[in-house]
Amino acid sequence: MLPDDCQPRPAGLAPEYSDIEAAARRIAGHATVTPLLESRTLNAASGGRILIKAEPLQRTGSFKFRGAMSRLSRLSPEARSRGVVAWSSGNHAQAVAAAAALRGIAATIVMPADAPAVKLAGTRDRGAEIVPYDRAREDREAIARDLAATRGATLLPPYNDPDVIAGQGTLARELYRQARQMDAAPDLLLVPCGGGGLAAGCALATAALSPATRLHTVEPAGFDDTARSLAAGERLENPAGATSFCDALLAKRPGELTFPVLQRLAGPGLVVDDAAVARAMEAAFRHLRLVVEPGGAVALAAALSGLVDLRGRTVAVIASGGNVDPSVFRALLET
Amino acid sequence: MLPDDCQPRPAGLAPEYSDIEAAARRIAGHATVTPLLESRTLNAASGGRILIKAEPLQRTGSFKFRGAMSRLSRLSPEARSRGVVAWSSGNHAQAVAAAAALRGIAATIVMPADAPAVKLAGTRDRGAEIVPYDRAREDREAIARDLAATRGATLLPPYNDPDVIAGQGTLARELYRQARQMDAAPDLLLVPCGGGGLAAGCALATAALSPATRLHTVEPAGFDDTARSLAAGERLENPAGATSFCDALLAKRPGELTFPVLQRLAGPGLVVDDAAVARAMEAAFRHLRLVVEPGGAVALAAALSGLVDLRGRTVAVIASGGNVDPSVFRALLET
Repeated sequence: MLPDDCQPRPAGLAPEYSDIEAAARRIAGHATVTPLLESRTLNAASGGRILIKAEPLQRTGSFKFRGAMSRLSRLSPEARSRGVVAWSSGNHAQAVAAAAALRGIAATIVMPADAPAVKLAGTRDRGAEIVPYDRAREDREAIARDLAATRGATLLPPYNDPDVIAGQGTLARELYRQARQMDAAPDLLLVPCGGGGLAAGCALATAALSPATRLHTVEPAGFDDTARSLAAGERLENPAGATSFCDALLAKRPGELTFPVLQRLAGPGLVVDDAAVARAMEAAFRHLRLVVEPGGAVALAAALSGLVDLRGRTVAVIASGGNVDPSVFRALLET
Repeated sequence: MLPDDCQPRPAGLAPEYSDIEAAARRIAGHATVTPLLESRTLNAASGGRILIKAEPLQRTGSFKFRGAMSRLSRLSPEARSRGVVAWSSGNHAQAVAAAAALRGIAATIVMPADAPAVKLAGTRDRGAEIVPYDRAREDREAIARDLAATRGATLLPPYNDPDVIAGQGTLARELYRQARQMDAAPDLLLVPCGGGGLAAGCALATAALSPATRLHTVEPAGFDDTARSLAAGERLENPAGATSFCDALLAKRPGELTFPVLQRLAGPGLVVDDAAVARAMEAAFRHLRLVVEPGGAVALAAALSGLVDLRGRTVAVIASGGNVDPSVFRALLET
């Protein structure tokens, strides 16, 4: 008989707030309690109050560790012995590698051959096996499913999984506690959005803990599938051929599990261009002394670019990751 | 009658541990509790365990806010109304400006005309009056003393003040609490050292809270006055004409109050060159996602450069500030 926390959630069901509480217990002591930062200069520029959740300081450099640790901690001993397989452009990869190493589980990750060097190295150095694929021509999900089937390993999806979503939701739970300690009640919560795992988890936590807060997803231009899907009322795909330097947010369409949660609890979706993202990265460098990667900076970009009127309002912004190649950052500081 | 906490400490007396406790109460709710970070990669490279106190995330971007707020919070209402004067190459300037603004006190800061632009702007934007001076030809301390005398204002020295030292000591007090939560007991504490206010405050806290921990000051080559003074048993000056890009650590000699504390509780002093500092800044960028300025990175440089044998040991390192011009950082990422 497995302990209660080891019973896997039924697949295909979105988590509830109690699952986020349970996930918080599973990851406590492993995940970093990242600070909620504030800058006088950024506040003054916005006319409101901006609280930035500094998830680049999370273990493995992004929020993804929360979801990976949440999911891996529920595997049965037998499943642990057979290993896990994941696919990821980089942050989920490093998170799964780190969580698997902590739990003594073998991890295999299907990664695009052109993923940022810093993410490839961060995955390999944590002891995971990397299976590269061609982003333009191959289906990484199919490769991962085949691998998992062959090896009897557990597939660990980046967002379309209730325990992953619940793990990501621990971020907003932590954020609202910290905001209370700062006497702040966010009117808005801006969340970077790829497949929607972070946004859905945070939406569930927001509904339970801070129902007056409105959550908006933020996506890079060209990859605004969630914004368009929320407007259309159905899951739409991104057009082929779009590019963005937000390598962490290039999911094709909203997740099957995440989208209904966002339909119910979030929106409308916001969209920012790469130039606004670059300015947000420089602002984080200068005023927060924080390294934020492009995909991690879209929510801050939305807050700083005037897309939302912040006058007299409090906005919580998730800076979701900080794994960026030095060459990209150098180019940015040149602009 | 002033409340007890408003009684200024007798000048010329080093603080005791109880003063650090009192300072912690004065700055609570104003100073940020900065996280104690750890990187698997940096641990693996060192063979030990490195805990990094991330003070670039402190209000105004450096530890200096602790000391400034500690001191300013003890001014009598009458002294507050007459304002404060300070001299600083930049981090103390911003800290005094911010603390004064919070307390509604007018602040005037004597700053080198060639201070980093980011530090000049950070001081001016906080509402302080800046009086520029020529670093090579003028005596900033004399200028500040004259100004304070003329205006009846209180002089707020950067390190040679018991309440400032006690404020900086709150950093180590916080650090040891966080280390305990991480089941870590530091064998060593490495502290960036200019005039020695941070090092002396942290030495007093270490003696009280973690007496088995050995504290070493760390200085940039060419500005190793504390290391040489500790070896000689008397306060020695730096030779004229030395240069370093560690603009925060260019004090001429150890402080009158700070040096006896360090003689009693710290040493030997460590010295690092600019190349090691640059490598430490890049390591912080890459593995901690933290922006650290040159002077703030000397202790991390000592830990990463093999200067201390870390195998099997735990070392706590203070990253003391993160106010660095983007152009300096860009050049660094090019190396």
